[in-house]
Amino acid sequence: MPRSSGPRGAYAKTPKRREEILDAAFGVFARYGYLNSSMSEIAKRAGMTMPGVTHHFPTKAGLLEAVLEHRDLDAAGHLDGRRGVDLLRGVLEIAARDERDRGLTQLFAILSAEATIDDHPAHGYFEERYELIVGTVRRGFLEAEEDGALRPGVIPAEAAQMCVALSDGLQLQRLYGIGQVRQHELTRTFLDSVLIEPLYAAGAPD
Amino acid sequence: MPRSSGPRGAYAKTPKRREEILDAAFGVFARYGYLNSSMSEIAKRAGMTMPGVTHHFPTKAGLLEAVLEHRDLDAAGHLDGRRGVDLLRGVLEIAARDERDRGLTQLFAILSAEATIDDHPAHGYFEERYELIVGTVRRGFLEAEEDGALRPGVIPAEAAQMCVALSDGLQLQRLYGIGQVRQHELTRTFLDSVLIEPLYAAGAPD
Repeated sequence: MPRSSGPRGAYAKTPKRREEILDAAFGVFARYGYLNSSMSEIAKRAGMTMPGVTHHFPTKAGLLEAVLEHRDLDAAGHLDGRRGVDLLRGVLEIAARDERDRGLTQLFAILSAEATIDDHPAHGYFEERYELIVGTVRRGFLEAEEDGALRPGVIPAEAAQMCVALSDGLQLQRLYGIGQVRQHELTRTFLDSVLIEPLYAAGAPD
Repeated sequence: MPRSSGPRGAYAKTPKRREEILDAAFGVFARYGYLNSSMSEIAKRAGMTMPGVTHHFPTKAGLLEAVLEHRDLDAAGHLDGRRGVDLLRGVLEIAARDERDRGLTQLFAILSAEATIDDHPAHGYFEERYELIVGTVRRGFLEAEEDGALRPGVIPAEAAQMCVALSDGLQLQRLYGIGQVRQHELTRTFLDSVLIEPLYAAGAPD
């Protein structure tokens, strides 16, 4: 909806309201999972009425999609224009950043598991998301191979699945307080084990 | 409750009934997750009344625990008395077997994610389960190290976390139909990468 004279009146509040609803929904989904969350709880946490929320997001499924896409756009931007080993570094940087956000980790862990059920409203989203993430990491490994940076015998498609699986599984362990080290450090250990040169000359992303 | 003269009357049905309830509960939990499952749905699927179910399992949390323990006992038996590389083979065999059971995979994927929430009734169970599984695999790697079977530089505690995480993450990918190969084959690829000799001279567990 174009506005000619800057934020004013009811429309001025729209982006801010949407943001508030997305934040509230994120908190509720992360706490209860999608299936167990209600629009009324989300409205309550956003300090709004139900019609106020449904005006922006008519359905819970649409709201979930908006929450997820909001986070993904950010990750895609971080990898934009990167290739090969540098792309793999970017993937690890995202994992390191996500790790600091327990709510986000928990939201994705719970939703991605719930949504394995075929008729879950986020099933298609997660299916595409996994294709995209595994595909991006695979491209990183393929380009690393072209660049002579991949150890002989390592199969890019398999290494990509393993890298993403490792990251997911370590997140789950972390939510249960298993292990001493930060999870992205073990993902880095894996990446270093399949690359000829270590991913970082010294240190790691924080 | 001791019986002196073999199965007879009402008590005779008890083990069978318990088994039927556990099967029904397994199906319902695998379909809806724990939080979204109801005792009435479980009773319906078992072809019993609610009081019939609650007679055996007074609470949904108790029923969940029974379902999970039922499966775990079986896995523990498979590893009994094994050590080192042979123990790691046993872990892979269990992963290969579980992989054929989509319902089981889905149940554990959904519940283990849901139960990351601190006050979920299965939180303590999964926390202990992860400690136990990662601990068992760590013992396998430590013994492999003692036996001179582990590659230099591999840290048993880290390899254990990575192995379990990989298996969990690959299960999730499999539920979304990602990748061509069977997931335990990639877990085997990982194990082979940290052991001096391949886990199997030829072939793999089916």
